[in-house]
Amino acid sequence: MSHTKLNVALAMPAHTARAVFPARSLDPLEPALNLLSREPIQDFHSPEGRALLEQADILITGWGCPLIDEAILDAAPRLRHVLHAAGSVKHHIGDACWERDIQISSAADANAIPVAEYTVAMIVLANKRILQIARALHSTRTDVLAEQLFPDMGNYRKRVGIIGASKIGRHVIRLLAPYDLDVVVSDPYLSADEAAVLGVERVTLEELVASSDVVSLHAPSLPSTRNMVHEGLIERLQPGATFINTARGELVDQDALLARVERGDLYAVLDVTTPWVLPAESRFYSHPNVLLTPHVAGSLGNELERMAASAVGEALRIARGEALQFRVRVEDLAFTA
Amino acid sequence: MSHTKLNVALAMPAHTARAVFPARSLDPLEPALNLLSREPIQDFHSPEGRALLEQADILITGWGCPLIDEAILDAAPRLRHVLHAAGSVKHHIGDACWERDIQISSAADANAIPVAEYTVAMIVLANKRILQIARALHSTRTDVLAEQLFPDMGNYRKRVGIIGASKIGRHVIRLLAPYDLDVVVSDPYLSADEAAVLGVERVTLEELVASSDVVSLHAPSLPSTRNMVHEGLIERLQPGATFINTARGELVDQDALLARVERGDLYAVLDVTTPWVLPAESRFYSHPNVLLTPHVAGSLGNELERMAASAVGEALRIARGEALQFRVRVEDLAFTA
Repeated sequence: MSHTKLNVALAMPAHTARAVFPARSLDPLEPALNLLSREPIQDFHSPEGRALLEQADILITGWGCPLIDEAILDAAPRLRHVLHAAGSVKHHIGDACWERDIQISSAADANAIPVAEYTVAMIVLANKRILQIARALHSTRTDVLAEQLFPDMGNYRKRVGIIGASKIGRHVIRLLAPYDLDVVVSDPYLSADEAAVLGVERVTLEELVASSDVVSLHAPSLPSTRNMVHEGLIERLQPGATFINTARGELVDQDALLARVERGDLYAVLDVTTPWVLPAESRFYSHPNVLLTPHVAGSLGNELERMAASAVGEALRIARGEALQFRVRVEDLAFTA
Repeated sequence: MSHTKLNVALAMPAHTARAVFPARSLDPLEPALNLLSREPIQDFHSPEGRALLEQADILITGWGCPLIDEAILDAAPRLRHVLHAAGSVKHHIGDACWERDIQISSAADANAIPVAEYTVAMIVLANKRILQIARALHSTRTDVLAEQLFPDMGNYRKRVGIIGASKIGRHVIRLLAPYDLDVVVSDPYLSADEAAVLGVERVTLEELVASSDVVSLHAPSLPSTRNMVHEGLIERLQPGATFINTARGELVDQDALLARVERGDLYAVLDVTTPWVLPAESRFYSHPNVLLTPHVAGSLGNELERMAASAVGEALRIARGEALQFRVRVEDLAFTA
C-alpha cells in the first residue's frame, strides 16, 4: 500500500449528490482516501471544477454528470479511475476515456437489484391473478370465487420466460430459484455452460413466448433490439399470459401489444412505455388487464444509497490495490445498456 | 421392504379430490402401494366407505374429510397412517387417532409456500409504494414524481417484522434472505439458536411493531392469539408502515386497524378479515391505503397439486419403510394452526 492517499472528487449535479450520497455515505472513504471536497463538480469548466479535476486520481460520478471528453481528461492529469454511482456509463464516458485506458466502473449490478425485485413480485402476483382478484373484490364487495374466475391460478410449475440474460435477467433467475417455477431464457449471448450454472433452459425467443405463462423483458436498448418484441411474437403469447416490461418501451411493438390486450386474453405490467408518459387518451390506462407504473422499477428512494455504497466500495478496492469488482470494458458497450 | 403392498384409500369430498388430485397425481403411488380406489370415501358410514376403511393401511385425506373418531377407527382395523393433503389436521383428526398412535402427516409445509410467496411480493411492493404509485398514474394519467410522493420509498435496508416463526413465517424469512432487508421476528417459541440459523434478530412484539417498515402476521389462530395485534400495538406502528395479514382476522383488532388506516399514515394488505366477507359498507373497501384480497394467499388453483404431491411423497416414504417427513404430533397442536 502506498503512503500517499489517492485523491477523490465527485462529479454530478447537486441534486443527484443529495439523493444518492446522503450524509454518512462518503464517510467510509476517509481512512483510505483523500476526499477533495464533499461538494460535487457540477461544471468541469468552472474554476472549482478545474481545481478539483487537476488533483483527482478518482472521480465518483452520478446521473447527469457532464461528458468526460478529451479536453476534460487533459485538465485531469492524475485521473485513472471513473466510478459511476449509477447504471449505464454511455452518457458521460467519452471515447477518450477508453482510448487513454481510464478504468471505468459502474453500479449497474446494484441498479439491477430493484428491477429484479419488482419483476419477481409481479411474476408471483401475475401467476396467482392477485391484482385482478383484488380488483374484483374491491368492486363487488362480496365473496369472490377466485378459482372459478381463474382456474389456472397459482405459482406451482408455471413457466417464466426471461428475455435477456442481462444483469437484471440473471438476478430475476437467482431470486426465482427457491420457487417451484420453470424458468426458460432467450439470449443469443448466453452459453450452454452459463445456462447450466444459472439452472435454466435456453430456448429461442419464439419458443419462449409460445410456452411461457409470464414473459419478462430484460434486454438492453440497442439498435439491434428495437422492436424485438414484434407483432408476430405478441400474437404467439399464450392465452392468459402476462407480459412484463421493465426494460424500454421501444423494444416492444406497443400497438400490437395493446391490440392483443384488448382482445382480453393477455395481461401486461408495464413500467416503461413509448412515449413516456403515455398520452392521457391512451387505452393502456383504462384496460383492466394492464398495470402501468411510472418507470419506478429501478433504483429510487433509499435504493440510490445502494449505488453509492457500490461506488464507495470500488474506491476502497483501488485504495487497497485490488481489482475493480464492477469494471466496464469498452467491448461490453455493444450488448449492454 | 415387505412383499405385500400396503393399501391406500382416499377420504375427502369429491370436489376436493377433483381439485387437489388431478388425473396423473396418484400415478406415482402405483408401483409401491395398492390404491384401493381412485374414488374417495365421502361418507365413512356408506357401504363403499366401510369396505374401503376395512382394507386401508393408509388414508390420504383432504379438505372437508369427515371426523375420524373412535367409531371410524374401529371400522378400520389396519389403519396406521393418515396423510392429509392440506394444512391443519384439527378438523378431522379425532382424539382417538392420537390415543391409538395413528401416525399423522400434513401438507402444512407445502401449504405455507404460496402464503409466503404472496407475502414477499407484497413486502417488496409495499416498501417501494408500487401499488400506490400505480394508482396515482392510472388516475392522473400524467407523469407521477414517485420520489416526491414517497421520499421513503425503496427496498434497501428497510426493516421487516415477522410476527410468528411459523412454517409460513420461516419461509418468508428464507425467501427474503437475498434481499437487502433487515428481518426481525417476534415469537415466544423461537430459541436464540433457531433465530441464528434463520439469520434473524429476535425482538419483542412491542419492539417489532415500533421499529418495522412492514409488519407481517404469521401466528396461528389459537385462543391465546386472539386479538394479539391489539389497539396498543396498532398505535405503535411507525408512520408509513404497512401491516400485512395473511393469517386470520380474529388475531387483529380490526376497529383499531381501520381507525389507524383512516388517520392516513398506515397501509394495510389484508387477505383475511373478520367477518369474512366484510359487509359491503365496510370502509376497508374504499380506503386507498388498503388492499383487500379474498383469502387467496394459501394454496389455490395449481398450488393444490403441491399438497397432493406432498401427501403422495409421504405414502411412498411409508412404502420404503422411511419415517414421515411432515409428521404432526399431538403436542404440536397447542401452538400451530
